[in-house]
Amino acid sequence: MPRLRLALAQTNPVVGDLVGNAAQIVQAARAASEAGADVLAVGEMALSGYPIEDLASRPSFLATASRAVATLAESLQDEGLGDLVVIVGHPDGPWEPRLLGTSNAPTAIAQNCASVLQNGRVEARYAKHHLPNYSVFDEYRVFIPGDDLLVLRIKGADVALIVCEDLWRDGGPLGRVLEADAGLLVVINASPFERDKDEVRVPLVTRRAVETNTTVAYVNIVGGQDDLVFDGDSVVVDGTGAILARAPQFAEHLLVVDLDLPDANPDADLPGNVQRVSLQVPERALGHLAAEVTQLPDDNEQLWNALVLGLRDYVRKNGFRSVILGLSGGIDSAVCAAIAADAIGADHVHGVSMPSQWSSDHSRSDADDLADNIGLHYSTEAIAGLVEPVETQLALTGIAAENLQARMRGVILMAKSNMDGHLVLTTGNKTELSVGYSTIYGDSVGGFAPIKDVPKLLVWELARWRNAAAAARGETPPIPEGSITKPPSAELRPDQTDQDSLPPYELLDAILDAYITRSLGRDDVVALGFDAETVDFITTLVDRSEWKRRQGAIGPKISGMAFGRDRRLPITYRPTE
Amino acid sequence: MPRLRLALAQTNPVVGDLVGNAAQIVQAARAASEAGADVLAVGEMALSGYPIEDLASRPSFLATASRAVATLAESLQDEGLGDLVVIVGHPDGPWEPRLLGTSNAPTAIAQNCASVLQNGRVEARYAKHHLPNYSVFDEYRVFIPGDDLLVLRIKGADVALIVCEDLWRDGGPLGRVLEADAGLLVVINASPFERDKDEVRVPLVTRRAVETNTTVAYVNIVGGQDDLVFDGDSVVVDGTGAILARAPQFAEHLLVVDLDLPDANPDADLPGNVQRVSLQVPERALGHLAAEVTQLPDDNEQLWNALVLGLRDYVRKNGFRSVILGLSGGIDSAVCAAIAADAIGADHVHGVSMPSQWSSDHSRSDADDLADNIGLHYSTEAIAGLVEPVETQLALTGIAAENLQARMRGVILMAKSNMDGHLVLTTGNKTELSVGYSTIYGDSVGGFAPIKDVPKLLVWELARWRNAAAAARGETPPIPEGSITKPPSAELRPDQTDQDSLPPYELLDAILDAYITRSLGRDDVVALGFDAETVDFITTLVDRSEWKRRQGAIGPKISGMAFGRDRRLPITYRPTE
Repeated sequence: MPRLRLALAQTNPVVGDLVGNAAQIVQAARAASEAGADVLAVGEMALSGYPIEDLASRPSFLATASRAVATLAESLQDEGLGDLVVIVGHPDGPWEPRLLGTSNAPTAIAQNCASVLQNGRVEARYAKHHLPNYSVFDEYRVFIPGDDLLVLRIKGADVALIVCEDLWRDGGPLGRVLEADAGLLVVINASPFERDKDEVRVPLVTRRAVETNTTVAYVNIVGGQDDLVFDGDSVVVDGTGAILARAPQFAEHLLVVDLDLPDANPDADLPGNVQRVSLQVPERALGHLAAEVTQLPDDNEQLWNALVLGLRDYVRKNGFRSVILGLSGGIDSAVCAAIAADAIGADHVHGVSMPSQWSSDHSRSDADDLADNIGLHYSTEAIAGLVEPVETQLALTGIAAENLQARMRGVILMAKSNMDGHLVLTTGNKTELSVGYSTIYGDSVGGFAPIKDVPKLLVWELARWRNAAAAARGETPPIPEGSITKPPSAELRPDQTDQDSLPPYELLDAILDAYITRSLGRDDVVALGFDAETVDFITTLVDRSEWKRRQGAIGPKISGMAFGRDRRLPITYRPTE
Repeated sequence: MPRLRLALAQTNPVVGDLVGNAAQIVQAARAASEAGADVLAVGEMALSGYPIEDLASRPSFLATASRAVATLAESLQDEGLGDLVVIVGHPDGPWEPRLLGTSNAPTAIAQNCASVLQNGRVEARYAKHHLPNYSVFDEYRVFIPGDDLLVLRIKGADVALIVCEDLWRDGGPLGRVLEADAGLLVVINASPFERDKDEVRVPLVTRRAVETNTTVAYVNIVGGQDDLVFDGDSVVVDGTGAILARAPQFAEHLLVVDLDLPDANPDADLPGNVQRVSLQVPERALGHLAAEVTQLPDDNEQLWNALVLGLRDYVRKNGFRSVILGLSGGIDSAVCAAIAADAIGADHVHGVSMPSQWSSDHSRSDADDLADNIGLHYSTEAIAGLVEPVETQLALTGIAAENLQARMRGVILMAKSNMDGHLVLTTGNKTELSVGYSTIYGDSVGGFAPIKDVPKLLVWELARWRNAAAAARGETPPIPEGSITKPPSAELRPDQTDQDSLPPYELLDAILDAYITRSLGRDDVVALGFDAETVDFITTLVDRSEWKRRQGAIGPKISGMAFGRDRRLPITYRPTE
């Protein structure tokens, strides 16, 4: 029974940075080699970052990426790591476009590949067969599907290789894994986090392992890339469904596991569309390694970690060193400040209190307390003297005057960003974005929206969780109790509260969940038992604020239906329903 | 030889407005019937509007749309139009999702259909086979492809029916048109305008007509829908390649043509996947109709008309009655004002001059002249007294102080919009957007960007064209000569011109065309003969301003590669090339 030592590396690539990403892979290979591994697998597109979007349609990018694969193989050899079998994901091309009749339409010229590197060479290559084109994925737009299955014979065991979506769908290469009777199936992935996805992903891996009676090794990238956060959570499951190894979420990590695999049948007829490549690896005398099996933390901690990594990587990968945000004393800005401090350190977080005549005493004191608790840089800019000349010159009243206050705060934050180079964070939550309860070019200004995909009720829940986690570690809870318990208010006029304009958040978030996350129509939402008039009011607000959302900052997706590339709806829309 | 009188109606649907769009179709059917037509065809998705994006994944929307088709058939019958064969495009569903193994991924539940209505019933239905999933199209995301070809036998002639992309691709239903030996091929379309597309589309129709020796009738919708402008330009070409009829661009229109078609062979064996439906139409004693063959206007007039319709329909379909924009005296705001006046009338256009201490005398006088020439509503708001308190309180200098001026202008326009309900237009051109030469939340504020897809050189060309067109009609040219001839300047500091920060526009637009429109990489752009340092400077600006473009207003696509859903690239991106 062949024993293979397999290493799975969760690297954190930056889209486009072929040199930097390759260096991460070389570093992982060195660690894998030192751990005595025979085979190292890194994630889907670990060499290019993921998703590369329409870079996949740029011939020069593909040519550069293809050269980078060969260069990586040579670098591994040069570093004395040539013995190690390294499986790496990358785009490949440019291929001749699939011709579309007389159309001059652009068409895919790339494949989504896993290459097998050893001894300074690319020994074999697999192209992803099933191309996801739903949710946040547009792979059918930019990739040509592959058709063959690749089986590597290593140490007398057969190792099949597929990419991400190939595991999720029946038929195609997965159907041939059974026929090929491989002992190990390696799946490389770029699978973004969303809430409860671990409840789908690991059961899927387990089911596939049992169905095919094959050990399945699943490796995922980590890190934030624009609105996606890749969570790692790589896992190895054997043919009985037992979890042999599992890596932590949201961290670069090398998972090493010893696998006792069935002997390959050297005389087996391979089914059609299966390519087999034999690779020699040196025999090593190593004892059995006890693999780690990381337990996932609870739901709120996972969500918090996703938000922290999403923000940290946006800041880091885009060359920022600090962030700035308005601190209103309310819950949203408090949670954003706490996320930012966890992501990049309080010393890189700048909070600005911008009180107006309508700001309550408790707002100012809650903002002060937040700044103290977290230890961030804190300043105050009163807006009355800036707002008054505009209000007077333009004779503004009502909503126009209210929005002016929010816009002047936006002007202040952007001016400070322009002076000092901070990234501006916008602190709107998903509930606000859903119904357009914000001032465009006012509180919406900023390059990143940390809680864009967090509904209001969940903002409160995460605040309580974060405070409790601090208390459990003997630290000061960051978020003032007043920010959590007081009625939410925009404080743009005297004694205003959110509930002057909106239903209670418990009701609002429930309707939004039905209409947005579950894509139910107006009638179907009413059929759940909600008041028809309230449903009409809310769904109309959602439809009419699409134009604002289109102009909003990106932020990390943590739900099954985030605004942005996940939910694509027209601005111009007259609902009949 | 059967003679068929065919009517093609260019309707202008609003996405979602099933009732209003159906009323347009009934109106077209009445006109077609009065003109003695046997068959009326309207465009792809004329009943729902196009593109419906992820509405196609909402079961309740599909169910409502499906009911609307039956209701439309009944309405036509009720109106005494039941004899007329009406071919109408619409989404159909919800179908059972195609099951994707164990995946819980959302998947298509709709088809993109053409239904044949007569005598109050849906007599036949065709589902689009080829689903475009490139450029601005995401049909593979939301639609299930059809497989059958539909042939209608009417007056002894065979009429085949396909949808849009089916005409562009070899194989599929188009391949079966030849086998089925139909005399007429009706293609319903939702094909957005782009520059020079008529040089591809009509030759394609002609080539298909000749290849299949079949008369091809091509009907397209018209109107603006968010960032797309559908141009109509419906055409009928016979099997020799002769254009029998052609409708005007950018206008709702009914094109009626008499077609002498070959007799259907009643004994012909139909190829597989072809359904044949016989329809009876009343014999009418009518003379031969001379069909119109509209000549397209020149390129600049087409572009201008596209921009005008794009703006008009955004205003109208979103319930606005007026627009407001800043008038700087420069060429961009002048062209936007002229487009707006052509679109909705000068009486609905509000221009605001917002001079600062750096505004030149000619800027103010050019803005005054523009307002006079066009006859729009004009007001002046000096910004010095509004900017000074902010600049002083925040101690702003340099870029921060320059941006503050632009942002205060944005505050003024949004405040006036909030007071009076105007749609704010943002006047940035494509060149500025490409390199990020604008102030986010400043001159970029607004709900619609009329010249977003117009590069700077083309802005000047269109200005000259529009003035010449006015002069040729004996009207006052709208755009002041000074706005066209003076060196462009943002006027945010003394004696500033655009060329302090950017290469000459001739060079800049050429590099941007290579990098953006043609998707060349940095090395390939340099290989065209441009200075490497300049190319690096420009491509870096383009890459780094993606975050600003993501937060920009939508505007009409007129090029082969518009910003927005046409060009999808990451914000977080470290180029290696």
